[in-house]
Amino acid sequence: MLKYGRVHNFNPGPAQLPLKVLEQIRDEFMNLRGTGMSILETSHRSKQFEEIVNSAVERVKRLLKLDDDFHVVFIQGGASFQFFMVPMNLSVQGKPVDYINTGTWSTKAIKEAKILKKDVRVIASSEDKDFSYIPKDVYEDGKAAYLHFTSNNTIRGTQWKKFPDGNGVPLVSDMSSDIMSRVFDPKPFGLIYAGAQKNIGPAGVCLVIIRRDMLERVPEDLPTMLKYTTYVENNSLANTPPCFAIYVIDLVLKWIEEDIGGLEKMEQINREKAKMLYDLIDSTDFYIGTAEKDSRSMMNVTFRLPTKELEELFIKEAQKEGFAGIKGHRSVGGCRVSLYNAVTVESVKELVSFMKEFERRYG
Amino acid sequence: MLKYGRVHNFNPGPAQLPLKVLEQIRDEFMNLRGTGMSILETSHRSKQFEEIVNSAVERVKRLLKLDDDFHVVFIQGGASFQFFMVPMNLSVQGKPVDYINTGTWSTKAIKEAKILKKDVRVIASSEDKDFSYIPKDVYEDGKAAYLHFTSNNTIRGTQWKKFPDGNGVPLVSDMSSDIMSRVFDPKPFGLIYAGAQKNIGPAGVCLVIIRRDMLERVPEDLPTMLKYTTYVENNSLANTPPCFAIYVIDLVLKWIEEDIGGLEKMEQINREKAKMLYDLIDSTDFYIGTAEKDSRSMMNVTFRLPTKELEELFIKEAQKEGFAGIKGHRSVGGCRVSLYNAVTVESVKELVSFMKEFERRYG
Repeated sequence: MLKYGRVHNFNPGPAQLPLKVLEQIRDEFMNLRGTGMSILETSHRSKQFEEIVNSAVERVKRLLKLDDDFHVVFIQGGASFQFFMVPMNLSVQGKPVDYINTGTWSTKAIKEAKILKKDVRVIASSEDKDFSYIPKDVYEDGKAAYLHFTSNNTIRGTQWKKFPDGNGVPLVSDMSSDIMSRVFDPKPFGLIYAGAQKNIGPAGVCLVIIRRDMLERVPEDLPTMLKYTTYVENNSLANTPPCFAIYVIDLVLKWIEEDIGGLEKMEQINREKAKMLYDLIDSTDFYIGTAEKDSRSMMNVTFRLPTKELEELFIKEAQKEGFAGIKGHRSVGGCRVSLYNAVTVESVKELVSFMKEFERRYG
Repeated sequence: MLKYGRVHNFNPGPAQLPLKVLEQIRDEFMNLRGTGMSILETSHRSKQFEEIVNSAVERVKRLLKLDDDFHVVFIQGGASFQFFMVPMNLSVQGKPVDYINTGTWSTKAIKEAKILKKDVRVIASSEDKDFSYIPKDVYEDGKAAYLHFTSNNTIRGTQWKKFPDGNGVPLVSDMSSDIMSRVFDPKPFGLIYAGAQKNIGPAGVCLVIIRRDMLERVPEDLPTMLKYTTYVENNSLANTPPCFAIYVIDLVLKWIEEDIGGLEKMEQINREKAKMLYDLIDSTDFYIGTAEKDSRSMMNVTFRLPTKELEELFIKEAQKEGFAGIKGHRSVGGCRVSLYNAVTVESVKELVSFMKEFERRYG
């Protein structure tokens, strides 16, 4: 039995948060650090909140080793709003915008760029095999305003190991489902965005990292709150930001820095968790991984069982045993175990035991 | 001394929330109603969360007596995003969009409509007297797509008592700072929006009420998440919504319904609180109200003291005595006491005592 009667939470997002972070939120909920008010009641113009937003920004910079060429801002609307803010802000007259299609979220990003009548080129896609792999040999001819890709595909369980080569074109990436889960080189990126609700916080805020030179592209005549410059120039405080969500992000990043010990350590733990599940999958024909081996995601392990009936039974029995959130996305079915940062090695161990036992009984 | 060492919080927003609501959030924070997970970790596609969003919608409808002609949705980005979503979605080819300018927020709404190159007419304004009053005898000629106004002006402390006559044109109102504080007739409204962080919840979500016929105006070629139809058709769940903020709104509205006893009662309490302060202001020359008497806001009481030095001392001493958030907006100076729903009669009584004592000592 877990503390507070909690379950092993493998939700795809909103997802599990570190227990220590939740306890701190609860403990200071009625009176935030001597202010006499809850974080929900604290002014975004207060010294306390400015400290929080600055702390969150600095933690992002430290963890991702961003130099001063990068700005870190927080924007409402989730990754879905970035699907149109990116082409609105970063396209360049006379240049195409390039996309790689690796699943549902890439497809949605492409759709929004097309709605805005941008000259969209899909230069690679894995749609031919149900998005079960990450395209190899992507060729960017160097003529695009940017090259957009989704770093991890939650629904199909695939993930880029080595990012595509932009050939001088700035990369733009939706990293909603694997930001802060592993180390990477930020230099080739013009912009990175990530809805918080998987690895770094609750729903309701999107982390956006933008390289200084990209800001020169922002058109003057956009609505104020749709311009990246508005957020950069006002340190995310042009209007009332989602204060609580930013506060939680700061605590989660503190946990990664101080409790886990940084991104290298976080990646190591995430690798360990994923390995346990993939090892099990590879050792049997009962659990059938849906992603090609070299494209497998560390964050979302997708698999099927021999029959639909067994899948339903598996999910039901798992639920009963305290394993939540392992149903596949409604668009593809099957099973999916999400292993975001806050999911513990212990939870994965227990799940693996349960899966072995389930196979023994029904396999 | 207040419970948990809390202060009397007169913040202009994010603002005080009902103590009972905060306590409930804290108490079920580690395990929401037997789910085994925090509200922050709960899927927006779960039964639990669907119940929450449906409950919040139904409470809005009951409290405001909205019939089935109205849809209730939750959108990220605060009122600032509505400043452009309204003209994007609701303008009509060949018709002007009309605005009444009563201060900072109206001015911002007008600016965004102009950025979108709409044919904006400002048909009334109180700019001539520093926005210290609500314009009388507003004449809408009936030719506009909509008539936009700000129902309560937080910075200048003014509020519409009787809403303008649209002359058949649908009214659109930014009610961020007085939604759910009083009873009104929703019929003439095509759309109402309200950032949650004053009367009904935390920052990070905007309540939008839209009349069915307005949806026919929504252009097809807008980005998906900027179309009101997307929210209506998906019950605010087209993408991951700000789950926590919606959850808090549901609890605050429950408190208004079940603890306060409805909107009539809420209005009565709000009137009582405002009267205490205005009575004090009217009884002395030491505290000088800045809004014209017949335009005074029940929500934000703005006043000055005889000198800037006394104002600074007043704010400092008040802070020391546990009265927070009474500094005027940085753009206008002076003092401002915000009396949103969660501010108790007791807090106002204590503030009035403090103000009398301060006048006795320094007046």
